[in-house]
Amino acid sequence: MTLTPTRADKFSFGLWTFGWRAQDQFGSATREPVDTVEAVHKLSELGAYGMTFHDDDLFAFGSTDAERQHEIDRLKQALADTGLIIPMITTNLFSHPVFKDGGFTSNDRDVRRFALRKVLRNIDLAAELGATTFVMWGGREGSEYDFAKDIRGALERYREAVNLLGQYVLDKGYDIKFAIEPKPNEPRGDILLPTVGHALAFIETLEHPELVGLNPETGHEQMAGLNYTHAIAQALDAGKLFHIDLNGQRGIKFDQDLVFGHGDVLNAFSLVDLLEFGGADGGPSYHGPRHFDYKPSRTEDPQGVWESVSANMQMYLLLKERAAAFRADPEVAEALAAAKVDEISRPTLSAGEGYAELLADRSAYEDFDAEPYYNGRGFGFVRLQQLTLEHLLGAR
Amino acid sequence: MTLTPTRADKFSFGLWTFGWRAQDQFGSATREPVDTVEAVHKLSELGAYGMTFHDDDLFAFGSTDAERQHEIDRLKQALADTGLIIPMITTNLFSHPVFKDGGFTSNDRDVRRFALRKVLRNIDLAAELGATTFVMWGGREGSEYDFAKDIRGALERYREAVNLLGQYVLDKGYDIKFAIEPKPNEPRGDILLPTVGHALAFIETLEHPELVGLNPETGHEQMAGLNYTHAIAQALDAGKLFHIDLNGQRGIKFDQDLVFGHGDVLNAFSLVDLLEFGGADGGPSYHGPRHFDYKPSRTEDPQGVWESVSANMQMYLLLKERAAAFRADPEVAEALAAAKVDEISRPTLSAGEGYAELLADRSAYEDFDAEPYYNGRGFGFVRLQQLTLEHLLGAR
Amino acid sequence: MTLTPTRADKFSFGLWTFGWRAQDQFGSATREPVDTVEAVHKLSELGAYGMTFHDDDLFAFGSTDAERQHEIDRLKQALADTGLIIPMITTNLFSHPVFKDGGFTSNDRDVRRFALRKVLRNIDLAAELGATTFVMWGGREGSEYDFAKDIRGALERYREAVNLLGQYVLDKGYDIKFAIEPKPNEPRGDILLPTVGHALAFIETLEHPELVGLNPETGHEQMAGLNYTHAIAQALDAGKLFHIDLNGQRGIKFDQDLVFGHGDVLNAFSLVDLLEFGGADGGPSYHGPRHFDYKPSRTEDPQGVWESVSANMQMYLLLKERAAAFRADPEVAEALAAAKVDEISRPTLSAGEGYAELLADRSAYEDFDAEPYYNGRGFGFVRLQQLTLEHLLGAR
Amino acid sequence: MTLTPTRADKFSFGLWTFGWRAQDQFGSATREPVDTVEAVHKLSELGAYGMTFHDDDLFAFGSTDAERQHEIDRLKQALADTGLIIPMITTNLFSHPVFKDGGFTSNDRDVRRFALRKVLRNIDLAAELGATTFVMWGGREGSEYDFAKDIRGALERYREAVNLLGQYVLDKGYDIKFAIEPKPNEPRGDILLPTVGHALAFIETLEHPELVGLNPETGHEQMAGLNYTHAIAQALDAGKLFHIDLNGQRGIKFDQDLVFGHGDVLNAFSLVDLLEFGGADGGPSYHGPRHFDYKPSRTEDPQGVWESVSANMQMYLLLKERAAAFRADPEVAEALAAAKVDEISRPTLSAGEGYAELLADRSAYEDFDAEPYYNGRGFGFVRLQQLTLEHLLGAR
Repeated sequence: MTLTPTRADKFSFGLWTFGWRAQDQFGSATREPVDTVEAVHKLSELGAYGMTFHDDDLFAFGSTDAERQHEIDRLKQALADTGLIIPMITTNLFSHPVFKDGGFTSNDRDVRRFALRKVLRNIDLAAELGATTFVMWGGREGSEYDFAKDIRGALERYREAVNLLGQYVLDKGYDIKFAIEPKPNEPRGDILLPTVGHALAFIETLEHPELVGLNPETGHEQMAGLNYTHAIAQALDAGKLFHIDLNGQRGIKFDQDLVFGHGDVLNAFSLVDLLEFGGADGGPSYHGPRHFDYKPSRTEDPQGVWESVSANMQMYLLLKERAAAFRADPEVAEALAAAKVDEISRPTLSAGEGYAELLADRSAYEDFDAEPYYNGRGFGFVRLQQLTLEHLLGAR
Repeated sequence: MTLTPTRADKFSFGLWTFGWRAQDQFGSATREPVDTVEAVHKLSELGAYGMTFHDDDLFAFGSTDAERQHEIDRLKQALADTGLIIPMITTNLFSHPVFKDGGFTSNDRDVRRFALRKVLRNIDLAAELGATTFVMWGGREGSEYDFAKDIRGALERYREAVNLLGQYVLDKGYDIKFAIEPKPNEPRGDILLPTVGHALAFIETLEHPELVGLNPETGHEQMAGLNYTHAIAQALDAGKLFHIDLNGQRGIKFDQDLVFGHGDVLNAFSLVDLLEFGGADGGPSYHGPRHFDYKPSRTEDPQGVWESVSANMQMYLLLKERAAAFRADPEVAEALAAAKVDEISRPTLSAGEGYAELLADRSAYEDFDAEPYYNGRGFGFVRLQQLTLEHLLGAR
Repeated sequence: MTLTPTRADKFSFGLWTFGWRAQDQFGSATREPVDTVEAVHKLSELGAYGMTFHDDDLFAFGSTDAERQHEIDRLKQALADTGLIIPMITTNLFSHPVFKDGGFTSNDRDVRRFALRKVLRNIDLAAELGATTFVMWGGREGSEYDFAKDIRGALERYREAVNLLGQYVLDKGYDIKFAIEPKPNEPRGDILLPTVGHALAFIETLEHPELVGLNPETGHEQMAGLNYTHAIAQALDAGKLFHIDLNGQRGIKFDQDLVFGHGDVLNAFSLVDLLEFGGADGGPSYHGPRHFDYKPSRTEDPQGVWESVSANMQMYLLLKERAAAFRADPEVAEALAAAKVDEISRPTLSAGEGYAELLADRSAYEDFDAEPYYNGRGFGFVRLQQLTLEHLLGAR
Repeated sequence: MTLTPTRADKFSFGLWTFGWRAQDQFGSATREPVDTVEAVHKLSELGAYGMTFHDDDLFAFGSTDAERQHEIDRLKQALADTGLIIPMITTNLFSHPVFKDGGFTSNDRDVRRFALRKVLRNIDLAAELGATTFVMWGGREGSEYDFAKDIRGALERYREAVNLLGQYVLDKGYDIKFAIEPKPNEPRGDILLPTVGHALAFIETLEHPELVGLNPETGHEQMAGLNYTHAIAQALDAGKLFHIDLNGQRGIKFDQDLVFGHGDVLNAFSLVDLLEFGGADGGPSYHGPRHFDYKPSRTEDPQGVWESVSANMQMYLLLKERAAAFRADPEVAEALAAAKVDEISRPTLSAGEGYAELLADRSAYEDFDAEPYYNGRGFGFVRLQQLTLEHLLGAR
């Protein structure tokens, strides 16, 4: 396979992804820290166009201003040297003990105020570095026990926080939008805004919903047994796909953060098709970074880490190639037509029709014959799926 | 236990619940059909205040007008004789082969038009019978295969349908609101609007969002591994809890439709607490029917069916009693305070404070000491949970 | 794709698979019944070598002897006309109301006796038709409520039943072995012997464990979130893979019974590799029928049904082709070696070594240096997975 | 609630449970280490009778002999001072980077040899401390990628390891038995011997199966969506419940390790009933330690930690009290009889009956009337479940 990623592909990686030292719930780190500057150069070589980070990834929690600035300066130099950009920044409100009951929605008001300040400072940094998306993953916003958290109160505080941040960005004139990243559980037993749907709904209750969209992560939606491609489609329908976190997950279990496509490859296939060819005239439906939020397995050494970085991009490009061929195949086109897949885009009502006209149309009800749908009028969905698999497997 | 349901409790049951003949995916019916009139009388005796139904529950799909009217008349007489009401009606768009790819979002436009007509007719019936809630469970709206359904197109058609129905109700002056019932899967591989969140978000894209709310079902949210009480809280936060479907589910698996409280009783406890005592001044947060959408197990005979009807109401009342005692216990109050559960209701910002003032408050950041949260400042959530369990188990 | 199934591939299908009329929990049948004789001819044309059935698939529950014999005779003639065989037969102990609490383990002893008789009669039929495998899926053996079933008692009754059946087969001199098919839930809330493991363990408690093996179904193991290939490997390790049920499932949810490979195609890939090339000298590890136990989606008409039959065989053959190429690729061989995948086959102890010698080997402990495993000695598993994906996707 | 744990209750706790510093996948430690000696005294005060540990819990990986001995001596003194015992010991083969691909089944043979040595040394310590159960949780034995681990090879190596350890214990004359602890996933994507069933089956392939049993953990079986009480019943049926790990889990997700009863309290109820009253004459069915393997939530400080220790014991005793009352209630007895729960203990065959006699009994088949099971002969399982709930909730 000779698919070579280029900056035009807009691939980006979190500093915490390849930089994960592989300490997990049951074991200690298996790898050395990755130096930021080296990482930027390495990503650049491998074909990425951007890197992203949490504040605490770049400079440890509690750093002095000087330590913080030193790391920022080193990063800026590396960016200048390579041409890599920082399309997105996010804040760590989940690792330090102070956030053990959350950041924006900790029961402890002092913590909530501290969390807001930590984020405000980080928004300034985002603006300074030219990041246009600010992701918020509220990993500790939630509870294990139903009576330990007043959910309506917590939603109010979440709203208060996002409203304040939105106003700040507006007043400052920053070219920044927010992207909420839902997750159903882990590390909390139940996390607030657990799915793409819950987060979309929450956004509509904000003062400036136009400032806030989503950063849906493959594995997070799949941890709830939900179809990620469906979720992305609903986010697009709502105009809220502001950023995306691609990775792999093998079903409902702990958060695996595998390489993109190394989990449910069939769902990854329909996703890439939607992103790349689901827009107007068959072009892309999404124009932002293709951001990988994954973890190199704990079994890997540094060489394996960088191979895993490439694997994400390879999988994406390969699936894109397969999707293009799928769409170009006349037999697929015929099967899609037989399955009336396109007919869903045709309004149910005719032009100018309202309920009155529909009620007057006897062919729609009184004279409608439902019987031919028994033992006939099949949709041929299985044949279509078989064609899908054959294209995915490069067999056509 | 001597808890006796009364009409003031607003318990209602679907005709299809006790009326389920227990035919399932792997076996034939084990019970005779239940006669509607007998059912109304029986429900009335047992303490319910309402019954609900799908059109096809009352009169078979394809009934003549006369057959249909005959069943409606019988029902009306039974209601008159007993004083039972019909608080909610819903339409069956999932059983007949014509709906095999859905109703509002079938790929087949003729089917969509037929579905709309079927619903419009049923809305008239709802108005005629005084039902004020019209539930829409789109069980067949979805797909098994990612390329078999254009999700954005399907969402547009769903919207088109609900917009049309809303306009109809407005123009007719009906006192009816719609309630969407989400479900993640089964019978389709993936169902559209799979969770409370996805449905809430969809509502905001409608022409008349004020007409449409939710009918969340316990087991449906739990089939996605999500916390039902959290979902109800978010629905309340959005002002969208228009109706509720109570039942029991034991984890992520097929839709079990057990008796309420016979599944995750701990989550049922926090739910009843929220519904009954989560409102202003500790009163109810929800005032509609307590509707049970469950299925008597296939092992039960007619006597067991009616015992299962009573079991739903008994469980609800018992949990309500437990919740009242929980709230009245001073030790619980003390534990809630220690866990700062109420502090979440206090705004994070002080009165008149904006980001400028927050940035100026050195105590919030520069002088904030995060260290005491290490090995200290515990929330006591486990103790609170233990108190919860002791109250649930009637041990305090 | 021009992969043509032949009888040498040993593909077989249940009469209840393509014959499923698509009645499900929420809807009525969408298809006509399939005639047995036509089905045999059709399967033969499409390349299958065998058909299987439950007694009630061939002749309805309660058939007279004459009706029963008529159907058997028709089947025999069709087999004679086509050369198709009946490699396996199974008994329906789950559809009729009499089995609502199970067959072998119903709480009702009369039902248990009836169930045994139904099975004994069907074993005679299996022998008559030359079937050498007798599958037992205990779909109704289980419970919804923990106190409704004494599990130890139920295991005793299960054992009593299988022991009796084993003795019968031995005494009759039938060339028949039994294969238990595990499933975690649905239609019961919890089914006895829920996984491959539980069933394997149960077999060891029988009087004639050598007569009894497994018939593991892809989706059933995956409904518990378990790795099907791992389960098959353990069944092979135990010498108990007597039969296999291939299909597709998309995660933990209701039993989907999709076409093989239309669910988790990655796991299907490793499965086919194991079955076809996991034996001695890289040959097959399993020699029985490749039996598909799936359901054509409810959206399909008769044409779609037969296309779905072919799709199962196509997917299997295609994955077999991919696995062969994977194994033949020198780069894969090198990656497998780097990951020490084969080293697991080398005993941990050297020849002649026991614990005494191991304790005396200082290099194994006192002088063993664990440090190089930190930040080094990576296994390269991600690279291997990427190679796997590239082969699966036909990209190498 | 005034239930006071005593040593007769045989409650024990892992040193790693209350000693967990609450570092998780997404955050750093929130608590100081707990000193072993203080822990022993505290446990003793709170009513436990035993403590358990992994080698690395007591002395860090890589400790010198002197450091190791120092910690052992301190522990022994604390045991002598309090009378607490060490009923069980286990080995950490999962935290250090050397075990990143497992211990007994690492692809790396050197690691496997090192793992065996680490365990052998720990068995000597178990014998020295009088522990009679040696637990083996193979948390890293598994894989993320199907081609990265030859499962049959891994099972052979697992077997080789356990066989060697068994021989060692036999030859040494140690009064020690082994208990395998299954888990489906986390930290590995798929773990070997994922459920109680798979582990039971594996044991039967060992040289000395009588030496090896199970240590099933509540949450581990529930992470696969399986019924823990059913699993324990099968383990008892096989005579293999050698030890037990009690905790709480709320469905299929990451491993929560909640307090016992704080997860699925209904399943915990039937479990305690089985353990305490499921034996001959209604006595205990299990006589070993009631061992809690849980984690105090990360939100808790040291005081909360010890309250959580007590909560486990309180929940167990409270459920035991409820189970006793349930069994003593005549209405429950009547409902159990109506549901024929005890009839499952009556053999299906009459005394002296074999298949020949069964075949000769026309009442079992030819004259058996299945029709009364339609619309009749209900089992009353829902009523029984309602009685169960009422007892659980202390409402009867």
